[in-house]
Amino acid sequence: MSDSASRAAVQIEGLLRPDLRGRTAYGAPQLDVPVQLNTNESSYPVPQVVVDAVAEAVTKVVPDLNRYPDREFTALREALAGYLTCTSRVAVEAAQVWAGNGSNEVLLHLVQAFGCPDRRALGFTPAYSMHPIITETTGTAFVHGRRGEGFDDVAHRFDLSTASAVAQVREVDPHLVFLCSPNNPTGTALDLDTVVAVHDAAPRAVVIVDEAYAEFARPGTPSALTLLAGRPRLVVTRTMSKAFALAGGRLGYLVADPALVDALRLVRMPYHLSSVTQAVARAALGHADLMLGTVEAIKQQRDRMVIELSAMGFTPVASDANFVFFGNVADAHGTWQSLLDRGVLVRDVGIPHYLRVTAGTPAETDAFLDALRELAPTHRLES
Amino acid sequence: MSDSASRAAVQIEGLLRPDLRGRTAYGAPQLDVPVQLNTNESSYPVPQVVVDAVAEAVTKVVPDLNRYPDREFTALREALAGYLTCTSRVAVEAAQVWAGNGSNEVLLHLVQAFGCPDRRALGFTPAYSMHPIITETTGTAFVHGRRGEGFDDVAHRFDLSTASAVAQVREVDPHLVFLCSPNNPTGTALDLDTVVAVHDAAPRAVVIVDEAYAEFARPGTPSALTLLAGRPRLVVTRTMSKAFALAGGRLGYLVADPALVDALRLVRMPYHLSSVTQAVARAALGHADLMLGTVEAIKQQRDRMVIELSAMGFTPVASDANFVFFGNVADAHGTWQSLLDRGVLVRDVGIPHYLRVTAGTPAETDAFLDALRELAPTHRLES
Repeated sequence: MSDSASRAAVQIEGLLRPDLRGRTAYGAPQLDVPVQLNTNESSYPVPQVVVDAVAEAVTKVVPDLNRYPDREFTALREALAGYLTCTSRVAVEAAQVWAGNGSNEVLLHLVQAFGCPDRRALGFTPAYSMHPIITETTGTAFVHGRRGEGFDDVAHRFDLSTASAVAQVREVDPHLVFLCSPNNPTGTALDLDTVVAVHDAAPRAVVIVDEAYAEFARPGTPSALTLLAGRPRLVVTRTMSKAFALAGGRLGYLVADPALVDALRLVRMPYHLSSVTQAVARAALGHADLMLGTVEAIKQQRDRMVIELSAMGFTPVASDANFVFFGNVADAHGTWQSLLDRGVLVRDVGIPHYLRVTAGTPAETDAFLDALRELAPTHRLES
Repeated sequence: MSDSASRAAVQIEGLLRPDLRGRTAYGAPQLDVPVQLNTNESSYPVPQVVVDAVAEAVTKVVPDLNRYPDREFTALREALAGYLTCTSRVAVEAAQVWAGNGSNEVLLHLVQAFGCPDRRALGFTPAYSMHPIITETTGTAFVHGRRGEGFDDVAHRFDLSTASAVAQVREVDPHLVFLCSPNNPTGTALDLDTVVAVHDAAPRAVVIVDEAYAEFARPGTPSALTLLAGRPRLVVTRTMSKAFALAGGRLGYLVADPALVDALRLVRMPYHLSSVTQAVARAALGHADLMLGTVEAIKQQRDRMVIELSAMGFTPVASDANFVFFGNVADAHGTWQSLLDRGVLVRDVGIPHYLRVTAGTPAETDAFLDALRELAPTHRLES
């Protein structure tokens, strides 16, 4: 770095918001390796029929890109409501739907509307690592709640019991609560009883159930969408990035009471969703069956990894998502690097002795399991 | 509204961030009328050559939308740097460029990184009305500075002199300064001497020059891009929504020292720019000459409106933008409604006796001028 560049860096650091000083930006490494199982994307490309439909939809809106998009993205909200009504068997109306450039943006809108510097949010961590970052961006305090209380065995160390959740909510008295179900990075879905109990124990809080991975849940796992009626403070967030296999399209959304949705209009940037983003998402939603067509195949690979990881002497957490979090790794970063050296990129989320791996294609699962099997004898913590 | 809907609305209002209570969402009416001259869009559709190029570019990225976009949007930043280097005759590097879903988002990133609740921003209003909204979203205070100090005549009542700007900066001692040049909604560009003086008078502030309309400036109006070298606290924001005629694509950007750009990575949502947005913007930048091809024609209509509005007895402000702000309107809202009744939508920004009108096609200018000429005898304040 040149002298003037160093001086500029020092000067800018001094002008930063104090709590940001010394921080590094969030983000998993974007590395070009053969087997990418680190960000819980779908490994399956968009089907050709959908590619054609999306291209046609975009071509139709491009001539009019001189005009601002529909600020209310009404047609997209109707399409999302229709999609949810079909797939969740809960009647969802367009007025209950809000969307952003990724679910991060809808989470930001929630914290911007209901958080501020003298308020606090509660999340039970480890959970999605953007929850505290988004919260603190608005000056709202983030309280790291605990998981595993009331469980003795390692298999449940990331579970959240109703009693523990309620006790922590009462202790913190939060203005916002984040519940992540299925939980990222650990993988297990939450009982709806816990969601209801947390909601009832936090009478002044907006309760956000982050269901980014809901479509991958094991049979019999109901969505918190079924709880929305009569609970205006409850919000369910979803994304098209995971099961819907459209991470590059950046479309996250939420469902809540129309009054809560209306509050988000006060903080969103006007025209935050481009005409193209709206067209791409609508076209893809028109082929939801195809976009979701690989979900069962991905769940099979997930379940296969759980079995194989156990057989190798690792301790996978029960997963309702498209990834598996597994423990009993002696040195998580060392194993991460050794897998990378073998062309397999997984995620080290910074929890000692644990790594997270995305369920991809059968061939990718093979590559991951083969590489890890080779490492297992020397990379396990206990055997 | 049903009883339960009313109860929900009251409950949500009570949970809102206190300063948001009672507010209404920002946004000009989106009305379907023949002549839309209210949001400073380009009235010219995207040329067919560019439509084809954009459609081709999007078609190429759609199959891989299962993957997250390039979080660093490197190719787009390079394309924007190349575009600025060609059009501004200032050498801009990709490391100096940052982008978001509209310039609102890059402004938000700036305030998120450099603002917080015990800090304040200064803007000289009336200016772009999102500046205070974005600022207050982060809890940062927004101080409304004054325009027109030191000028006696009505023609200069929205100008900002160097002496007045510097005095106000010293008084407020801000952490962020917004300078809007050309100023929206009033239209006139700022002297670069004023920019430099404000920068030097505010030694701890990030100084943002919002140049959303820079491409429309009258000959001899230099850009603040020429001031960036050696001033790491100075930022120039731009957009593809106005002269570049791509409002629906939502791509705003800024140029600053690489160290300042780096700070924005701490507050941006990861993957905030979709693969499709990146592809659309790059394809359009590849045809910058065509996209900017109507700028001269729009400037002619602007200059024509200034002359005709004067002839009608209104008081247009000197404009370097694609719109004209004109005074001497007896009842701004009444005239706005009367024009709308005649199929012409202009903007009432809430400043008594003034309206803003976008420069569109010659036919749109005709429609606006014809309608207003009919109204003028009874709608002028003084004649």
